[in-house]
This record gives sequence, C-alpha cells and structure tokens, in this order.
Amino acid sequence: MHNNALLSESQFLTQAHELAKELGALLTTRHLMLTLAESCTGGMVAETITSVAGSSAWFDCGFVTYSNQSKINLLGVLSKTLQEHGAVSEETAKVMALGCLNRVTLNNHNSKPNHTHIAGSITGIAGPDGGTAEKPVGTVCFAWTDLELSAKNQIQIQAQTKIFSGNRQQVRQQATIYLLESLIKNLR
Amino acid sequence: MHNNALLSESQFLTQAHELAKELGALLTTRHLMLTLAESCTGGMVAETITSVAGSSAWFDCGFVTYSNQSKINLLGVLSKTLQEHGAVSEETAKVMALGCLNRVTLNNHNSKPNHTHIAGSITGIAGPDGGTAEKPVGTVCFAWTDLELSAKNQIQIQAQTKIFSGNRQQVRQQATIYLLESLIKNLR
Repeated sequence: MHNNALLSESQFLTQAHELAKELGALLTTRHLMLTLAESCTGGMVAETITSVAGSSAWFDCGFVTYSNQSKINLLGVLSKTLQEHGAVSEETAKVMALGCLNRVTLNNHNSKPNHTHIAGSITGIAGPDGGTAEKPVGTVCFAWTDLELSAKNQIQIQAQTKIFSGNRQQVRQQATIYLLESLIKNLR
Repeated sequence: MHNNALLSESQFLTQAHELAKELGALLTTRHLMLTLAESCTGGMVAETITSVAGSSAWFDCGFVTYSNQSKINLLGVLSKTLQEHGAVSEETAKVMALGCLNRVTLNNHNSKPNHTHIAGSITGIAGPDGGTAEKPVGTVCFAWTDLELSAKNQIQIQAQTKIFSGNRQQVRQQATIYLLESLIKNLR
C-alpha cells in the first residue's frame, strides 16, 4: 500500500494544482512539451494541468483511452500485450506513453522548434469492481519518459506500479498526484 | 451571458456527477458509446464521466487537444479553419466532434456490435488571458452529434456558442455542465 494519507477533495485540488504549477515551471525551463495518456484517471491529470493558466505553453495534448479498443486504435497498444499482460500492467503503460509520444511527434512538422515532447501514462483499477487477487482494486501502473536515459532518437520509458487505498475517486486522485510527482522528480 | 448561478466546487462536483450518471443511463438504453474532444476544459468532461463507476460501458475515449497542432494532427481540423474562424469557433468545434467520431469509428472493427458512437466537443477561452473584443474570456463553443438529424452513414453535428462569467475554473465548470446537459437533451 502507498502510504500517502487520504486527502479531502479541497486538499487534493490545492495540492494537485500546486504540483501542476511546479511541473509547468520545470517544463518551461527545459523547453519541453508534455503529452499524456490516461485510462483510469479519465482525464484528471490533464484537467489538473490545464487548471493552470498559461499551461498551453507546456502542455500539448492528452489521450483518455478508456476502452481497450481505444488503447489499440489511438496509441498502438497491441492486442497481444493486453491479452498477455492485461490493460493494467507496466507493459501496457509503457506502450501508452510511447504511443502518445509517437502520435504527437510524428506529425508535428509545424510545432515549436526547440521543444521536445515528453509523455506520462496511467492505467489502473479505480474500483469498486474490476479487482482480482493478483491485481486488487487500487492497482495503478504508470510510465513516463526517462529523461536521464533518453538520448536523441532513442526514447527510454520508465514504469512503476502502486497499490492505493481508498474509494474510486481517492484512487484516481492519488494516481494523479503520483504521476505529477514522478514527472517533477524526473525533471529536477 | 449565460444565466447559470456560479457554483461552489462541491456543488459543481455533485451536479456534474449526477448529470454524468443520467447521461450514462440514456446512452446505455440507446446502445450508444460516447467520445469527446476537449480543449479549454482540458479533460474535465471526461474526468466527470469516468467518476461514474461502470462508465466504461458507455464511454470509449476522449481527446484533450489543447494545442492547435494537436487539433490538426489528432482530429483533422484544417489550418485554414483555424486561421479563418479561430480555434474558438463553432466551425472548429464541429470538426473536432466529427474528427473524434471518425478516429474511433474508422478503425473500430472489433468494437461491440450494436453500439453506435456519438461525440461532443468543447473549445473556448477560459481566461484570464486570450480574450478579444469579439470573443471575450468566457466564450465557449460546443458541438455534438445531432441524433434527430443523423441518418445512417450521414452524421449531423449541431453547434452552439455560450459566454460564461466567472474565473477560469468557473468557466470550465459551466462549460462541462453545459455539454453534459446538451448531450442529455439530445438523447431524451
């Protein structure tokens, strides 16, 4: 279990907004644009980020790939990956992050010069249903571009799994904060 | 100005969640799957919808196309449309709704039979910057599939523009509620 204390709705909003501002400042300094792929959080990370005025300078776009089919169609996740590892797996999270990165960079001939894209992804079981013995409710897998390891033309993706406690909304909120914190750590 | 009274954060969350549940019940009855394209709301509609447990039965995916480039790359909005009408226009909103509908239905060979997709989109100026005399802060354009007019193989999109008062978050919240209400009205 992740040891974060459960937050009230207003505590979450304040903390998440402050993290998004901090992330934005770091992305701006490093001339990076962020793109996101979210499943169980359903757009909560993108919404938090865009609650910051001026976030269009460092946030490009997000994919809310809620169905498995949309993970396949929009992000290039393979049916085989979903079958072998499940939609909630580090393997799927990695392909989701890579997929959105590919989608935004392949066609971005007109995007701002000097801006590199980075990506973050979330796929998990927010509950109340969908849990199993192996992957209980609260299991969330994350992936993000590893800037330390990424060299030019070779993108490295890092992945992690957490098990959060609390109800559906609290699992989603903790996942949102965890991805924001991970992206910040990676940029410091 | 739209005459909705401004809501507190908790009033918004309660009202939006209830609307999402009502929308989900209507979509389920009519065997429809929803897809979304959001700009100024940044994923707030998708997040509200996925706050409802079981929403995977009627919500497929969402696009948070925050940059103009992502509206072009991911949803097929033309540069010409953006130049002539602006990113915040009913024309752009219509193409965003059509674009996400095309993206999810073109490749959905494996999607659930008997499920038709519908779409909703939002593009606006949440502020505090970005307003003009013609399009002040609070201007939000919406589009959604018009089920009355849509016949098989011919999709009809309806669009509307609203001007909301309040701060950045309040404009985004009112836009979220307006799209949910519009989708519900369209399904009744």
